[in-house]
Amino acid sequence: MVANRGLIFKKVPEGFPVVGEHLDVETRDFDLDAEPVEGSLTVKNLLISFDPYQRGCMRQPDNATWAPPFTPGQPLMGGAVSKVLKSTIADFHPGDLVWGIFGAEEYSVVPPSLIPTVRKLQNPLNLDLVLFTGALGTSGLSAWASFYDIGKPKQGQTIFISAASGGVGQIVGQLAKIEGLRVIGSVGSDEKLRFITEELGFDAGFNYKKEDVQGALERLAPEGLDIYYDNVGGETLEVAISHMKDFGRIGMYISILEVWCLPRTNDDPACVVSCGMVSQYNLPPPLRYGIKNTMEIFLKRLTIQGFIVSDPQFVGPYVGDFFAKMSLWLKEGKIKTKESVTVGIENAATSYLGMFKRENFGKAVLKVADLEE
Amino acid sequence: MVANRGLIFKKVPEGFPVVGEHLDVETRDFDLDAEPVEGSLTVKNLLISFDPYQRGCMRQPDNATWAPPFTPGQPLMGGAVSKVLKSTIADFHPGDLVWGIFGAEEYSVVPPSLIPTVRKLQNPLNLDLVLFTGALGTSGLSAWASFYDIGKPKQGQTIFISAASGGVGQIVGQLAKIEGLRVIGSVGSDEKLRFITEELGFDAGFNYKKEDVQGALERLAPEGLDIYYDNVGGETLEVAISHMKDFGRIGMYISILEVWCLPRTNDDPACVVSCGMVSQYNLPPPLRYGIKNTMEIFLKRLTIQGFIVSDPQFVGPYVGDFFAKMSLWLKEGKIKTKESVTVGIENAATSYLGMFKRENFGKAVLKVADLEE
Repeated sequence: MVANRGLIFKKVPEGFPVVGEHLDVETRDFDLDAEPVEGSLTVKNLLISFDPYQRGCMRQPDNATWAPPFTPGQPLMGGAVSKVLKSTIADFHPGDLVWGIFGAEEYSVVPPSLIPTVRKLQNPLNLDLVLFTGALGTSGLSAWASFYDIGKPKQGQTIFISAASGGVGQIVGQLAKIEGLRVIGSVGSDEKLRFITEELGFDAGFNYKKEDVQGALERLAPEGLDIYYDNVGGETLEVAISHMKDFGRIGMYISILEVWCLPRTNDDPACVVSCGMVSQYNLPPPLRYGIKNTMEIFLKRLTIQGFIVSDPQFVGPYVGDFFAKMSLWLKEGKIKTKESVTVGIENAATSYLGMFKRENFGKAVLKVADLEE
Repeated sequence: MVANRGLIFKKVPEGFPVVGEHLDVETRDFDLDAEPVEGSLTVKNLLISFDPYQRGCMRQPDNATWAPPFTPGQPLMGGAVSKVLKSTIADFHPGDLVWGIFGAEEYSVVPPSLIPTVRKLQNPLNLDLVLFTGALGTSGLSAWASFYDIGKPKQGQTIFISAASGGVGQIVGQLAKIEGLRVIGSVGSDEKLRFITEELGFDAGFNYKKEDVQGALERLAPEGLDIYYDNVGGETLEVAISHMKDFGRIGMYISILEVWCLPRTNDDPACVVSCGMVSQYNLPPPLRYGIKNTMEIFLKRLTIQGFIVSDPQFVGPYVGDFFAKMSLWLKEGKIKTKESVTVGIENAATSYLGMFKRENFGKAVLKVADLEE
């Protein structure tokens, strides 16, 4: 038996989650010698990805298909980079590095139901493993698949990305630069603005806390938008629709952070605290932002599409190409990333909640163990 | 010289168009003996289609691509079935029946710019020519192309169609029945409700003036919607989004009648009179209806697409198949239609405006001349 510390989901929060009440780091016994049941794996987790969508999983059970709710008494679930300790599956062997949807804990038994999420981690270019929680993980694949499949980008087009310094937005913007698009991003601080324009090479950007979206788009994209990559919804979506060219395309990948924090204000942490709700539809209608220009979807013949990376159209066709090209571009520095790494499972709650307070700048990652430990 | 009476656009209306001020039937000289300039045709118009979108053309000039604004002093433009009198174009000969975008008048010179809209009318099944203004014209092709291309229907799915007795809605519903879908329609009168359920064979329908959309969809489509064919926008769109299944598809073909009549009320003619505006975007924001559940587009991974029939993706691939199958289905009575035919160019304004007052039941058509006259 070893001690297995994990970030346990305890209770559905109504507003901002409270450590000790809605989630907490707890220690449980774990039998490292037990043989996993047929069709399952035992893994040691090295890096755990925290992503805003996980707030959406802290909900009552329902039939929604986009991301299953967490189970009270069990660890939060999410993407992780792990080492196989024991395997009953021919494809995986002790010592293999894998990526999958595992618990936010030190050791996990991966049941048969989650085995389809597991893939062997291929790292021929010897990249930092932390990249497999972001640019080479779910956020990177989300960005890649939807940018190409929904955006259908063409050289010379203009793309606008909201939450542009976030895990998905920053990759989309850099892919768009590689494909020869003009890239405009909105962010919530001057530091993030410098990051996307100076470090990532976006053509332009603005801090939405200092300049309204309408004015900024008129100033930065007078030619109109071919693609809007929507990470926030609400008023920004409305303004973007007004700025779309005919036949423009809008991909909706709404950071769940925003769902729980509508109506959006310019003061994000306070917003989460005061407006955190189980879901947007549970918000009373007067609090929801109403998009008033849906008529333009018709007049401009726009296409708006919601997606998540596990949707059937993305699963097959993109993965191989994504890994090969993204790995190379990361190695060459053509794609840059920023991670906010917290060390130690004991700091799991702080790291997770910090993401919602926007204390992090960059992809939130919890480092649980070194590969060689 | 002959007298050429036509329905002339005189001035952009702010509200409901007034005869004598914004439009009027006027008589002009027309030289039947003049040779048309190279690249043009002279035609005698037989049947003129009036469609709600034409209200949207009574606007100030702009760069919008969906349908060009009318020119003051010139006749209203729209779909017509006509006979070629003189031709400078190899494909067309005197006596040919053609369909195209012509003036709402007795005789038209078709300039080179409009020649791409002209096609020879093929009628091997000897169908009533009036069908070529509707089911075999723009509304039929709009319904056909978008139902298959945007809706991507599959047998056993459930489709909801708003304005279901209208020129496009009634065709979509019958196509959906042929393809094995469950079809639910909303209409604005009990007479129209009987029409779609008893005459056209829709599975169910409701009168939105007597039952709210939310309750009706819960009652009639508890299984949820796979496709929503949106002819009205506004609150109905919002409720439909809430009733969509995951991966559902929404085609937006919004009757321009509604654009000029937002916010939608249950009293349509009064609404047109009191709320008629140059366009929805010119409505002050508080009057526009705000769609508050756009988040569901993401959560359910919906696709929403606006379209008009002249869009590039529709022009080529559908036309041949459309004419062949639709002609046969009309001949066999598998697809039924309802037209509201007004006789005589002198009644053009009454017929046109009656459409907006919803005095018509069925596709508005003006009969200007008989084929044999």
